[in-house]
Amino acid sequence: MPDNQQILLDNRPSGEAVASNFKLVSSATPELAEGQVLVRHHFLSLDPYMRGRMNDGKSYAQPQPLGQVMQGGTVGEVVQSRSPRFAVGDQVVGMGGWQQFSVVDAEQPGALRKVDTTHIPLSHYLGAVGMPGVTAWYGLVKIIEPEVGQTMVVSAATGAVGSAFGALAKARGCRVVGIAGGPDKCKYAVDELGFDDCIDYKLHSSAGSLAKALKQACPQGIDGYFENVGGMVLDAVMLRMNAFGRIAMCGMIAGYDGQPLSMANPALILVSRLKVQGFIVSEHMAVWPEALKELGMLVGSGKLRPRETVAEGLAAAPEAFLGLLKGKNFGKQLVKLI
Amino acid sequence: MPDNQQILLDNRPSGEAVASNFKLVSSATPELAEGQVLVRHHFLSLDPYMRGRMNDGKSYAQPQPLGQVMQGGTVGEVVQSRSPRFAVGDQVVGMGGWQQFSVVDAEQPGALRKVDTTHIPLSHYLGAVGMPGVTAWYGLVKIIEPEVGQTMVVSAATGAVGSAFGALAKARGCRVVGIAGGPDKCKYAVDELGFDDCIDYKLHSSAGSLAKALKQACPQGIDGYFENVGGMVLDAVMLRMNAFGRIAMCGMIAGYDGQPLSMANPALILVSRLKVQGFIVSEHMAVWPEALKELGMLVGSGKLRPRETVAEGLAAAPEAFLGLLKGKNFGKQLVKLI
Repeated sequence: MPDNQQILLDNRPSGEAVASNFKLVSSATPELAEGQVLVRHHFLSLDPYMRGRMNDGKSYAQPQPLGQVMQGGTVGEVVQSRSPRFAVGDQVVGMGGWQQFSVVDAEQPGALRKVDTTHIPLSHYLGAVGMPGVTAWYGLVKIIEPEVGQTMVVSAATGAVGSAFGALAKARGCRVVGIAGGPDKCKYAVDELGFDDCIDYKLHSSAGSLAKALKQACPQGIDGYFENVGGMVLDAVMLRMNAFGRIAMCGMIAGYDGQPLSMANPALILVSRLKVQGFIVSEHMAVWPEALKELGMLVGSGKLRPRETVAEGLAAAPEAFLGLLKGKNFGKQLVKLI
Repeated sequence: MPDNQQILLDNRPSGEAVASNFKLVSSATPELAEGQVLVRHHFLSLDPYMRGRMNDGKSYAQPQPLGQVMQGGTVGEVVQSRSPRFAVGDQVVGMGGWQQFSVVDAEQPGALRKVDTTHIPLSHYLGAVGMPGVTAWYGLVKIIEPEVGQTMVVSAATGAVGSAFGALAKARGCRVVGIAGGPDKCKYAVDELGFDDCIDYKLHSSAGSLAKALKQACPQGIDGYFENVGGMVLDAVMLRMNAFGRIAMCGMIAGYDGQPLSMANPALILVSRLKVQGFIVSEHMAVWPEALKELGMLVGSGKLRPRETVAEGLAAAPEAFLGLLKGKNFGKQLVKLI
């Protein structure tokens, strides 16, 4: 069996996450038991939710255990199989974690899913046609429930979730406005991702200022908002929400590092009769097939052309992840392992 | 025509509302035109929402215009009629405002509604079997959607809305816990209104302390919360909400007087996958008949015995209203005009 490089969570962040929270180790790969397969990972997915799980304390998921391999989505290839369900050479998506290889109980429902790379590159199954894409789909379709002609806004617009959200909302006849960090990302959102407009939040130092820019970009107000960041951006958007607007709460990355960020004026939920709803896409597995089908068609037809930022080699994962938390990535952040 | 005492909004509050914001005047009652009726008000309803409308600026309703009669719900008796739809002696509920008499266009849909006082005292049509009762009903039934055995919490528990909420939730097989100010109100909530428990928020100076008391009173966590106050109470309840909990936002009275009160940790909406939804009952007229029917049966059968605090005479309305904003009332706050 091959030697397996792994990255463990060595200690929890106090405040900002840092590289020394992680530890690179090497271990032997165990022999397969009956029903197991060995997957060689091609790509590892880095996602903002991982930061929340590095903290101890109440969160929607169990905290990432200390001293164990960082959990995370992976795509790869079956290189050994003792399961009738998978053959050597199958391309699969799973939750292999921050390591080169994983041993998977192939009989466990949902542990591993075969994917077809004829029209869709393998890496996209970690992004637009994977968990981030379904996340965008669920928030838009099941919580926001957009109507033709309404205005949708998404923060972290050029990320894996945001870019999928944009394409899904355009396909439903909406005006779509992004919020992103920096002129390059904003230009990309409009030129490549098809957003109607995109606001650079870095140009604004207060919610009031950002709200003014939103008023220009959303002359009819905002009917649906997909929240990835929280803090000042959320406060600004709330000032511009139309009556009966819907906010899908997917991430609050701005508050992961320290004290929780407050919401400045929750009375707007009442004043504007908003619905604000949090969700976790893994709790809604029933919608995945429908969502993945639409996302696959959008990617296959070129209506969604997801961009990727790819770090090379497992050892690069911690720095790439810390960069993601600071918005240094451009599109889906991956680590290429092979 | 009789002389008509009226209370106008003379100027807007800066910070806390004060008696000098109001002005008592006397005016002649105009002659009735065809289709109009003259109503003599027996009771005037005082409600927290009126404070929000005294401010200028964005709210869900138009601000109360300066120099005009304070708007508000009334019950009374038709004393003159030029409409075939109402006869002298009919008992009616309407939006007559802070005055002794009102002239009503009886043909206007919803302007005036005849009520039956055989089993239900006239004043209750301003409380449990009126707007406040329907407000509780809508938040519970349409937003919280309670299930048997779940735990429901309501702030301002002994008020007109809170007491109706308690009875409606008990009728659905829920554990119901109130939050109220002072030992008398808490004792009343449990002994008379049928709450399973009631917490005196005045014993707590922080959300953390109140959250501990909520943990004791709600050992299974909180599944539904009906929000009347905002601020520290909301922060405390959010710490104890179960996964997939629902919060109906009806009022944020704690923040009416000055700067908006923040929500300390909105990330809990995501962590606990909450739905937080604001509503205004007057936008959901379709549910009123169903709600009023249930509320009428609860009052008629003695399962809901609403308490009233009654101020005497129109001139007492401003002080009674300011007391309501401070929680000095006990149950529904009314002004008796006759």
